[in-house]
Amino acid sequence: MKLKTAILGVTGYVGQQLLSLLASHPNVDLRVLTSEKFSGKRVDEAFPHLLGYSDLILSPVSKIPGSEPLDLLFSCLPGGTSSVFVRRFFEKGVRVIDLSSDLRFSDPADYSLAHGVAPRFPELLSQAVYGLSELNRERIKNAPLVANAGCYATCVSLAVAPLLKKYEVENDIIVDIKSSLSTTGRAPKPESHYTEVKEDVSARGTGGDDQKHEILRVFSDFCDVKKLLFFNTRVPVKRGIMAASYLRLRSEISPDEAREFYAGFYGNDIFVRVCDDLPGMASVSGSNYISLGFCEREGHLVIVSVLDNLMKGAAGQAVQNMNIVFGFPEDTGLGQVPLFP
Amino acid sequence: MKLKTAILGVTGYVGQQLLSLLASHPNVDLRVLTSEKFSGKRVDEAFPHLLGYSDLILSPVSKIPGSEPLDLLFSCLPGGTSSVFVRRFFEKGVRVIDLSSDLRFSDPADYSLAHGVAPRFPELLSQAVYGLSELNRERIKNAPLVANAGCYATCVSLAVAPLLKKYEVENDIIVDIKSSLSTTGRAPKPESHYTEVKEDVSARGTGGDDQKHEILRVFSDFCDVKKLLFFNTRVPVKRGIMAASYLRLRSEISPDEAREFYAGFYGNDIFVRVCDDLPGMASVSGSNYISLGFCEREGHLVIVSVLDNLMKGAAGQAVQNMNIVFGFPEDTGLGQVPLFP
Amino acid sequence: MKLKTAILGVTGYVGQQLLSLLASHPNVDLRVLTSEKFSGKRVDEAFPHLLGYSDLILSPVSKIPGSEPLDLLFSCLPGGTSSVFVRRFFEKGVRVIDLSSDLRFSDPADYSLAHGVAPRFPELLSQAVYGLSELNRERIKNAPLVANAGCYATCVSLAVAPLLKKYEVENDIIVDIKSSLSTTGRAPKPESHYTEVKEDVSARGTGGDDQKHEILRVFSDFCDVKKLLFFNTRVPVKRGIMAASYLRLRSEISPDEAREFYAGFYGNDIFVRVCDDLPGMASVSGSNYISLGFCEREGHLVIVSVLDNLMKGAAGQAVQNMNIVFGFPEDTGLGQVPLFP
Amino acid sequence: MKLKTAILGVTGYVGQQLLSLLASHPNVDLRVLTSEKFSGKRVDEAFPHLLGYSDLILSPVSKIPGSEPLDLLFSCLPGGTSSVFVRRFFEKGVRVIDLSSDLRFSDPADYSLAHGVAPRFPELLSQAVYGLSELNRERIKNAPLVANAGCYATCVSLAVAPLLKKYEVENDIIVDIKSSLSTTGRAPKPESHYTEVKEDVSARGTGGDDQKHEILRVFSDFCDVKKLLFFNTRVPVKRGIMAASYLRLRSEISPDEAREFYAGFYGNDIFVRVCDDLPGMASVSGSNYISLGFCEREGHLVIVSVLDNLMKGAAGQAVQNMNIVFGFPEDTGLGQVPLFP
Repeated sequence: MKLKTAILGVTGYVGQQLLSLLASHPNVDLRVLTSEKFSGKRVDEAFPHLLGYSDLILSPVSKIPGSEPLDLLFSCLPGGTSSVFVRRFFEKGVRVIDLSSDLRFSDPADYSLAHGVAPRFPELLSQAVYGLSELNRERIKNAPLVANAGCYATCVSLAVAPLLKKYEVENDIIVDIKSSLSTTGRAPKPESHYTEVKEDVSARGTGGDDQKHEILRVFSDFCDVKKLLFFNTRVPVKRGIMAASYLRLRSEISPDEAREFYAGFYGNDIFVRVCDDLPGMASVSGSNYISLGFCEREGHLVIVSVLDNLMKGAAGQAVQNMNIVFGFPEDTGLGQVPLFP
Repeated sequence: MKLKTAILGVTGYVGQQLLSLLASHPNVDLRVLTSEKFSGKRVDEAFPHLLGYSDLILSPVSKIPGSEPLDLLFSCLPGGTSSVFVRRFFEKGVRVIDLSSDLRFSDPADYSLAHGVAPRFPELLSQAVYGLSELNRERIKNAPLVANAGCYATCVSLAVAPLLKKYEVENDIIVDIKSSLSTTGRAPKPESHYTEVKEDVSARGTGGDDQKHEILRVFSDFCDVKKLLFFNTRVPVKRGIMAASYLRLRSEISPDEAREFYAGFYGNDIFVRVCDDLPGMASVSGSNYISLGFCEREGHLVIVSVLDNLMKGAAGQAVQNMNIVFGFPEDTGLGQVPLFP
Repeated sequence: MKLKTAILGVTGYVGQQLLSLLASHPNVDLRVLTSEKFSGKRVDEAFPHLLGYSDLILSPVSKIPGSEPLDLLFSCLPGGTSSVFVRRFFEKGVRVIDLSSDLRFSDPADYSLAHGVAPRFPELLSQAVYGLSELNRERIKNAPLVANAGCYATCVSLAVAPLLKKYEVENDIIVDIKSSLSTTGRAPKPESHYTEVKEDVSARGTGGDDQKHEILRVFSDFCDVKKLLFFNTRVPVKRGIMAASYLRLRSEISPDEAREFYAGFYGNDIFVRVCDDLPGMASVSGSNYISLGFCEREGHLVIVSVLDNLMKGAAGQAVQNMNIVFGFPEDTGLGQVPLFP
Repeated sequence: MKLKTAILGVTGYVGQQLLSLLASHPNVDLRVLTSEKFSGKRVDEAFPHLLGYSDLILSPVSKIPGSEPLDLLFSCLPGGTSSVFVRRFFEKGVRVIDLSSDLRFSDPADYSLAHGVAPRFPELLSQAVYGLSELNRERIKNAPLVANAGCYATCVSLAVAPLLKKYEVENDIIVDIKSSLSTTGRAPKPESHYTEVKEDVSARGTGGDDQKHEILRVFSDFCDVKKLLFFNTRVPVKRGIMAASYLRLRSEISPDEAREFYAGFYGNDIFVRVCDDLPGMASVSGSNYISLGFCEREGHLVIVSVLDNLMKGAAGQAVQNMNIVFGFPEDTGLGQVPLFP
């Protein structure tokens, strides 16, 4: 079975990663690729590393031929814009996986709280299933519209949420995030200028704050945590997010007990690795894995989670969600071994 | 068809890359993996990024059970040591692909010239087929023993040799190499200490000098070039080799003519990319491609070639050679898209 | 006034940095430099970047001529070894600044707690003045023996301690540290291999744990905080430490109030910068500055502090302490502008 | 003696470096700093790493008060624009050091050849002295207008020109350049996006081609070389240029003889280091040194030269030229030790 598939917005890093994955996915027949910046060019003219992978001509998103019969559409368009096009195709009966932040809250009030503005299409929100594969798998199956989870939200939610079902936290949860430069996007800016950031670790604090609310929404399925201290620091690597989550639990559990609990919880989830040691970013780079590690410090449990923000944090999970929606084996097209060295 | 396969020496970077490739190769059944440093450990204990890929226990190379029936053996052991073990298995009828520099010259005199010492098993040399896939494919088919080409030799030979068949050079060929830090090996040393090399570009000049002779041997099939100026500079990237080859030809040809000539020469070779622009290292990183670009400067033709030294320069080409030996499609297990970004 | 000066242990990164600083300090006459690894070589043979700065021959620490009259000695020897030689010179009346961790606790019990072993020369501990320039300046003046503060301890203590004098914390203080690769030392090891760490952010958690106790000792002069959660993550930069300290205060203060408070507290301290924004590591790289920034998150005050671990975290502060001991202007020889870009 | 000094264009990397140097130069009194981008801001608001170094307010270049009495002006404005303002001040009798490429050729025909357009103020060209300190020192003394040499031109000319006086080359000289990312300027662009270039070595070939003509003009004082193959490759470091110059001499000389020749030639030049080994970029990073090394390959002499493009390649040499013009000791304000590590 080959799905006639479109990707909206392949210019950026997430779009690029998704294109690389789908170009060799056995169940995907790429039919439409959009790019404003490179419209009119062949895929390999715009992206030389894909020479030989596709003969498609890139078109602007507004010029997709209406006659093109599509089974599936991925949108990598920016938040705010994405839902406009997602809605158009969704209403024509095309299955959609939206990688933007437009549809991640079912309740418009939550959206407004996270984004500081009201959602453009409030009625669309409730129709989208939240695409956090491991924690929402049953609802993703056969879903017509999936809102792919955010990179920070995936990294923190998968690491912390399961525990909250069983254990009560005593304090505010503090999450110290280290995020790679690709999270700042592909458009050149001073914050991503090689010469300026190469030797810099930059505490911006903010960045991904809307995803704090995403995380709290996930937590709300498990417990009633209402506050989360989310602090984001940029580190000079290309790919990767690390979260160190500090939790003081009402009843202490040892790192070994935590490991055992998580190993059980994720027993059937091939992309979640429960590690003996605290994991590093490089150990999952280029792959769809998320790795979890545990240690104890001064009575707090520290959970360290790492993922590749372009893979499990975006395009990889989107493919995983597609596999779930259509009933393909969950790791189809996701066999990338972490790139070492 | 599944080949019962052993890899000797999986600890180093080449061994690691080969293990990653073979772990998901459809025609390979990994049976034996050796590592002196990690012997006794499970694969994923030694190499956490491979969690879930194999349950094999690493053993020292000297302890491979004689009873293990093998179809194929790859050796990633260091030069000097490799041939000792290669010979042992080769004599038992196991097909061998040797990634070391031990067997790359059929003539013992050439070996001595390149290495400064005589070969350990001179009689073995003439039985090994030189594993430069694109230029030696016919002889590699069904070969019982393949000496995988070196990383520098592959990068320079594929870029320059074809031209020498048709065009005569007027001067000495000058090859200015830029090589990544993984070419210095995995054993920690000052030359690979992060803090010392991060902002350093280091002209060592030497490094891979034995491969200068390898290149001249390849050239000798096409022309009678006898001298090659080979100069190696280390640059702070993880993976990759770039060669800028400066040629002054007796009859000038334009970059466009060169491109056309090469596009014709490599018309059926999926891993050789003839590019419109001069290629950068990142455009092939993580993949088995070699990319070629051409320009003219002051009457010289400059050929720029890039490859990933662990892939097309080592483990990737070894798998390509295996596919040729056994008649599998040449890109089986080599579908890795260059990692961008 | 020129002090006849020795540096023990110039091979490592801290020794190197100190040598660079003292080679052009107007009040220093370098007479003895020791290095086990490079003994017998001229300074510039061992360290080519110092060509022209000194004609001294490096000697092993055990071979310092007894006849050499010295006014001042810096020890960059490793902890455990340093105090052996420090004691020898101190007893002969030479002023000493010890950069190791041997003498940073006046109470042997504190030392044992921090290091897990008893101190070698307990009687020496009480004679050493703790070399945290800004908070201990009065006692450093004229001190015969200074125990230079640790890099992590400097980064956290200067950032947090002043506040504790005036404001009470409600919870455990959580300090999330990001530390550069030069903190792992100059001896090559897998954790500092370029190829392995370039794209890695590695949560070791531990590292500098003895300095947690150093920090608590500094805090004890200001308040009775007894617990500190100290978590260390390695990031791929050459130089720098960043600490994000999370404090929940009994009476909330705004970031602006905190800034004002710190600006007043450090009003006369030229090496402490109180910043409007959260500072990045690069903004102090190569200089003796420590920069402090403040923000509020979910009712917590977050203090971000950055310094160059080889400068303010080690050699720079050692020179600052020397200037204080001898009454030189505190910034003599420390005019290095942060290297931008 | 304190010179009332202006810097035009402090926003870019060269302007920044010059500002850092002059802020602590004992003979300089900074009075005017211009920046279009940051006009109206205090120096430390625009450049936080300079907090405490200057209270000046940045102004647009067009708004420099005419009443400001100036002794000296540095222009770091871009080529094409710089000469407009240089001329204005030069005609008022202000001494000028121009760091742009506007005035580096005394003959308008040479300028046109190098830049492809005619010079804006041809009459100004012949009044400017070429600011390559070591080779043009006598003419720089007391010069009213200095055209600071280019970074590539400095790196290649100082390395190759002296030899050409004594030895005849047989072939075209081939110069393979490796240049750092700061040579691409401070304006963010895809070619300097961290995520894209971190693992890339990019053969652009071109870049600095106008300086090929600068080099040939320098050579012309020594010999009649007319052709120079100049090939530029970008490497992922922040600062630095390396040139490998390949020369086939009519009468061979050994590397040792070359070293001796250069050591004699540059015997009194403190910023030229003649090295025993081939130098790396990091060995001069952050300093005003240029280092030269020599080796032999296949009958060619290979000269490797390295410098920091923002220091000896731009701002450092500008200060050196200022010192020469005014008769200050040549290393005044240039005591920066290469930053190691």
